[in-house]
Amino acid sequence: MPYRETEKMRRRKAAARQRILEATRHCVAEGGFGQATISRVAREADVATGTVYRHFESKEALFAEVFRQATQREVDKVTEALAGDEPAPARLERALRRFAHRALRGPTIAWSLIAEPVDPKVERERLQYREAYAFQFRQAIDDGIRETSLPPQNADITATCLVGAIAESLVGPLAPAHRDRYTGLENAQQETLIEPIIRFCMQALTGRGGDNERT
Amino acid sequence: MPYRETEKMRRRKAAARQRILEATRHCVAEGGFGQATISRVAREADVATGTVYRHFESKEALFAEVFRQATQREVDKVTEALAGDEPAPARLERALRRFAHRALRGPTIAWSLIAEPVDPKVERERLQYREAYAFQFRQAIDDGIRETSLPPQNADITATCLVGAIAESLVGPLAPAHRDRYTGLENAQQETLIEPIIRFCMQALTGRGGDNERT
Repeated sequence: MPYRETEKMRRRKAAARQRILEATRHCVAEGGFGQATISRVAREADVATGTVYRHFESKEALFAEVFRQATQREVDKVTEALAGDEPAPARLERALRRFAHRALRGPTIAWSLIAEPVDPKVERERLQYREAYAFQFRQAIDDGIRETSLPPQNADITATCLVGAIAESLVGPLAPAHRDRYTGLENAQQETLIEPIIRFCMQALTGRGGDNERT
Repeated sequence: MPYRETEKMRRRKAAARQRILEATRHCVAEGGFGQATISRVAREADVATGTVYRHFESKEALFAEVFRQATQREVDKVTEALAGDEPAPARLERALRRFAHRALRGPTIAWSLIAEPVDPKVERERLQYREAYAFQFRQAIDDGIRETSLPPQNADITATCLVGAIAESLVGPLAPAHRDRYTGLENAQQETLIEPIIRFCMQALTGRGGDNERT
């Protein structure tokens, strides 16, 4: 008689898979991918290490899945911040601020998602997600050009430049060696980091310097 | 009697090491790190595969060394372009253009240096080299603020934003899937890609829109 998976078994397996993903995410949020060993993940998910490999063909495949889920969450937050009826520049500024604030509030996971050297599998996901961010920005820039709240420009290129600028400018501050300087600090202190980033991006977008005294 | 390395043997070893590095660089320039297998490298360097591992502890260590040498060359080109007596904005614009033009002229190696998913060892080098680029830009921005050719700004953050913007905006065009659209083309066609990138960067730097009709 062929082996038949019962409904109960299927649900139990799905629950174990979910626990493994959550445990990995938790480990990454605490110490990056570098600290998320399979034995630690298994212990935290309360499964045998062999069980992890029954659900994911390799540690890299597990990491890629965790990366995807966590980054999709961040892309969704940016999409949310871009929505609204205001002119495009206001929506874009809100989204860029949201990205930076969220990163500084969860610096370990943000570093892991943005820059931690991991595995080519994760790097490939990273490239795809950079495109997903740029796609969201591009739509808002197109809106801005159409409604003339932004000057004519190549929306595609502006969008990828924005993604590069904001991600790169946070790599240093989020890196394990520097992170303590900016996180766990008063919100006002985070602003000394975020304001110049936003200013850079908005000047590039709008071609206007705004308040140049605000350094 | 203890084994003594003669001068001749030392030179022969150094020459083999150099050939291995050059062969690897050549393979990467042709098809990226992904195509540079140790057996191909050994064949091209005219050594046994075992010899490669006597010089480099692993493929990743070899790749990291090749990455370092090739990227240092690019950083030197940017440093060269930043030198001169002109006001800082002109020097920065020249350096950004140099970076983009060099990338589009050698798209395979540029993609490998900027974005190809490789190995954590190479990723770590990449992060360090991003800092090296930013350091060069920062000095020119500081000059510009001092000589008032640039408005007051956080030079550190502007510099990292510039590195992020120019690198990210080239990732798509250099990627294997899109590369043919921009390379091997007339120079004029490359300009349709480069101009909006330079414009983004210069607007962000100077807070001035310049010629907004130039889309």
